[in-house]
Amino acid sequence: MADDQRTTLTQQIQAQEQKIKQLKVNNADATVVDGEVAVLKGLKQQLDAINANSPDKKKKKAGKNAFVLKTPKGTKDHNDKEMAIREKVFSTITKVFKKHGAVTIDTPVFELKEILSGKYGEDSKLIYDLKDQGGEECSLRYDLTVPFARFLAMNGKEYQNFKRYHIAKVYRRDQPAMTKGRLREFYQCDFDIAGTYDPMIADSEILKILCEALTDLGIGQFSVKLNHRKILDGIFEICGVPEDNIRPISSAVDKLDKSPWEDVKKEMTEEKGLPEEVADKIGEYVMLKGGRDLLEKLQKDEKLTQNASASQGLADMALLYDYMDIFGITDKMSFDLSLARGLDYYTGIIYEAVTALSAAPTTADGKKVERKTKKGTDELDESTVGVGSIAAGGRYDNLVGMFSGVNKKGEPNLKIPCVGVSIGVERVFSILMAQQKATEIKSNETEVFVISVGDGLLKERMQIVNQLWDNNIKASFMFKNKPKLDKQWNACEKDHIPFAVIIGRDELDKGEIRIKDMRSKDAAQGGGITVQYADMVKELRSRLSEL
Amino acid sequence: MADDQRTTLTQQIQAQEQKIKQLKVNNADATVVDGEVAVLKGLKQQLDAINANSPDKKKKKAGKNAFVLKTPKGTKDHNDKEMAIREKVFSTITKVFKKHGAVTIDTPVFELKEILSGKYGEDSKLIYDLKDQGGEECSLRYDLTVPFARFLAMNGKEYQNFKRYHIAKVYRRDQPAMTKGRLREFYQCDFDIAGTYDPMIADSEILKILCEALTDLGIGQFSVKLNHRKILDGIFEICGVPEDNIRPISSAVDKLDKSPWEDVKKEMTEEKGLPEEVADKIGEYVMLKGGRDLLEKLQKDEKLTQNASASQGLADMALLYDYMDIFGITDKMSFDLSLARGLDYYTGIIYEAVTALSAAPTTADGKKVERKTKKGTDELDESTVGVGSIAAGGRYDNLVGMFSGVNKKGEPNLKIPCVGVSIGVERVFSILMAQQKATEIKSNETEVFVISVGDGLLKERMQIVNQLWDNNIKASFMFKNKPKLDKQWNACEKDHIPFAVIIGRDELDKGEIRIKDMRSKDAAQGGGITVQYADMVKELRSRLSEL
Repeated sequence: MADDQRTTLTQQIQAQEQKIKQLKVNNADATVVDGEVAVLKGLKQQLDAINANSPDKKKKKAGKNAFVLKTPKGTKDHNDKEMAIREKVFSTITKVFKKHGAVTIDTPVFELKEILSGKYGEDSKLIYDLKDQGGEECSLRYDLTVPFARFLAMNGKEYQNFKRYHIAKVYRRDQPAMTKGRLREFYQCDFDIAGTYDPMIADSEILKILCEALTDLGIGQFSVKLNHRKILDGIFEICGVPEDNIRPISSAVDKLDKSPWEDVKKEMTEEKGLPEEVADKIGEYVMLKGGRDLLEKLQKDEKLTQNASASQGLADMALLYDYMDIFGITDKMSFDLSLARGLDYYTGIIYEAVTALSAAPTTADGKKVERKTKKGTDELDESTVGVGSIAAGGRYDNLVGMFSGVNKKGEPNLKIPCVGVSIGVERVFSILMAQQKATEIKSNETEVFVISVGDGLLKERMQIVNQLWDNNIKASFMFKNKPKLDKQWNACEKDHIPFAVIIGRDELDKGEIRIKDMRSKDAAQGGGITVQYADMVKELRSRLSEL
Repeated sequence: MADDQRTTLTQQIQAQEQKIKQLKVNNADATVVDGEVAVLKGLKQQLDAINANSPDKKKKKAGKNAFVLKTPKGTKDHNDKEMAIREKVFSTITKVFKKHGAVTIDTPVFELKEILSGKYGEDSKLIYDLKDQGGEECSLRYDLTVPFARFLAMNGKEYQNFKRYHIAKVYRRDQPAMTKGRLREFYQCDFDIAGTYDPMIADSEILKILCEALTDLGIGQFSVKLNHRKILDGIFEICGVPEDNIRPISSAVDKLDKSPWEDVKKEMTEEKGLPEEVADKIGEYVMLKGGRDLLEKLQKDEKLTQNASASQGLADMALLYDYMDIFGITDKMSFDLSLARGLDYYTGIIYEAVTALSAAPTTADGKKVERKTKKGTDELDESTVGVGSIAAGGRYDNLVGMFSGVNKKGEPNLKIPCVGVSIGVERVFSILMAQQKATEIKSNETEVFVISVGDGLLKERMQIVNQLWDNNIKASFMFKNKPKLDKQWNACEKDHIPFAVIIGRDELDKGEIRIKDMRSKDAAQGGGITVQYADMVKELRSRLSEL
């Protein structure tokens, strides 16, 4: 058999080589030639794969390129159990989003390269590019926010007033640290409100949505750190940070959740050239945490209130606290002046939700990965969020304008302010997977398994299962002419199917079938109640409605 | 403002150039340098974008590279209305799949290039490759079948008995014919049953699932063309086609749904070197269509029954007809000997569902695209299926084995037979979108809009909407301190929200609110019934349950 295949492939390879030669003679377009070369390579690989296992050593050598069976670095398959958890998470979150009037849109998985360029600062080097196969230069999306802003810039006139969510995969060519749960392909789950509104109303609804979603996901206690870019920028101005050093100093401050003040101060002074007394002044502010009490304290700080940026930020925060009180979420919030967030594009409030629970990351087959923690700290992290974070976001009023072009005055043609949140669903999956055994997860929804006793009764089982399907009951049976009774029971139990319909020749002749509740472990293979065949659907419906 | 940005960007560009220079001096790794160059390019593009709109002509010239705002060629955004239809389609299909016990898995959007190589014959040239940025060579998935087979080869021992569906995007670097509805990124929707079972049982359930899904989708009349690769191969053998010409002749036969016999015969004889009498003999068989009557006719054909391959195929078909009778789907089937299907990997029954309806493709904004049809034929097509097709599939018993490696005898290490179907959901979307006006599609699920009359009553509206959310009622309000009444009505109508809760100062003081059914057009902005605030949730729940 292998020899036949080898002969056919060898002929195909020769023909393909001839074709490519001819194309080159005819000066065919390079992309056409490349395509045919790809076909040739495929054929050669097939041949390699066969030769690799050949007992003939000489041929074996030629097969050294036979490939390893795996997914690309930093990616993984998600099996049925994992998908069951994922679907539960998505549907829980989507329900909350829809309760708040959100719609969804879909954008391509890749964008023109230039759309993504200049949006992610130093992280631009993590963008995946598509190969230039003749045509446009494209890259896989890095997040869902930039494609959303691009969509708004293209269609914004129809979407001046827009609540949208988007749950999809994004791509980052990071050094994958699987043991940290960091992947190159992972889901993001974004909710954003676009439009020009009165201050802080949409912002407070986003925070309400975040609290509802995290509560409904059942991942335990959480709190939301809250800050305002304008207060932070005001503090930097007051303390004497030069304007072009504000963002670098801001990202140093953002490390305060992981590093002690001394390290952050060192970064500010030694790496970023800030005078020590300036750093100390910043330190006095950014160590402050609290609730509305902190806001009231800052409102009495004349240096802050006299700074235009800080004053605006404080006014926003006061309004926000009023609205959060109405929405009943103030107790979840922690006003934290050390929160700075990495991304450059935020212009107003910023926030990050943290959870007390950690999660052991799992491999593709659901096994727990052993983690090495450094200095006893929990180092699990995701690309979007810091240590312990489960969601993050903020207001970004200028991103859409970056895509809309500028008018003669240098102002954007279209300005659509936005506020949004991104929930770190990969971390949520990890937490929920860690909470249960894989074998206990029911990944199918099958309600009834049709079992025959004695004879195979294939056609009779098919008749019954067909009747169940036609009555919208989720049902399965074994694809064997004469399945063994044991195997049928096992299949039913393995898939956690709650009911079995059991048929035997004698009972069928009397127009009867048996229904057994598989969750009652008492009578292993016996038991159940006998009902008339005509009452089967009615009886099952009544029992299923009680589940 | 533009000048400030320009100065900052110029400084950043200089700094970045310096950084790259230094990296090169230090012999840094090429991928590191490439990353920093990508950052530099981004900064330069931002500068270009600003200069492009500068009134200063000299600067304008530098901005000639400013980008066009669009999605990549062959891709499109899907707006909220389109997504509402898509979600309906996905949930309808998923419900059918789950009724039949299916689970879902997820695989990465890209695979190692060598996994895809040699699987798609000449179409391999349509595979999208990722750029080699240091590391593995990867390609975007071309379909969902090969990743499924790769998954089974990796995890098959746990999945000997597996019904899985997968709804996800695939990628083909085809010449996009948007007017034909053909895209480079499109959804596939696959259902497959893997495992070693008794003959034709799983095959018949796949056909049952296909009929249920197409019926539930509400796309009108359809029929399913049915054939068997072994019967077809037997016919070719009997007629005298040399073995290495069977697949090429088979793909000529597959064109009979689009081309007259004379053209197909010409391809067989002139292009593929078949003697005319052989082609004529084939013609006698492949023009045959029918039902079980055709099967019975073929069962009496001694030439066929004496051919091992055809005889096996006929036995399969006989069993299949028995099972289809039980499942009540025989009337949808058309046994059609001209159906050959393009893909090489089919080994048993093959099928293709066709619908009477055609659909006008739409652009991203929901407008209908004007189509040019050639010779009066409907040329709408999708990459997976032929003209008029809406679903297709077949049995492929050897694909998993291609990934599992071969033993010393040249046989695959792991053999998992599969049968599956792929529903052409892009075409289903087109048909359903064409059936209704975009403005009439409700893309949100909001049930109640809270409106104030007279004063703005922002905090009161927020209190009410919060109470509705806490009671799981989907509610919205306008993000304005003092919204105009007209604008609130318009928002409510535009989003097709069925109920309004209307509040005014006087009524609130009396503890009352008004509930209005927005679908009753009689009393434009008045009307509705007054209820006690305490009864609001109860009253709304009762009305919503009647929707």
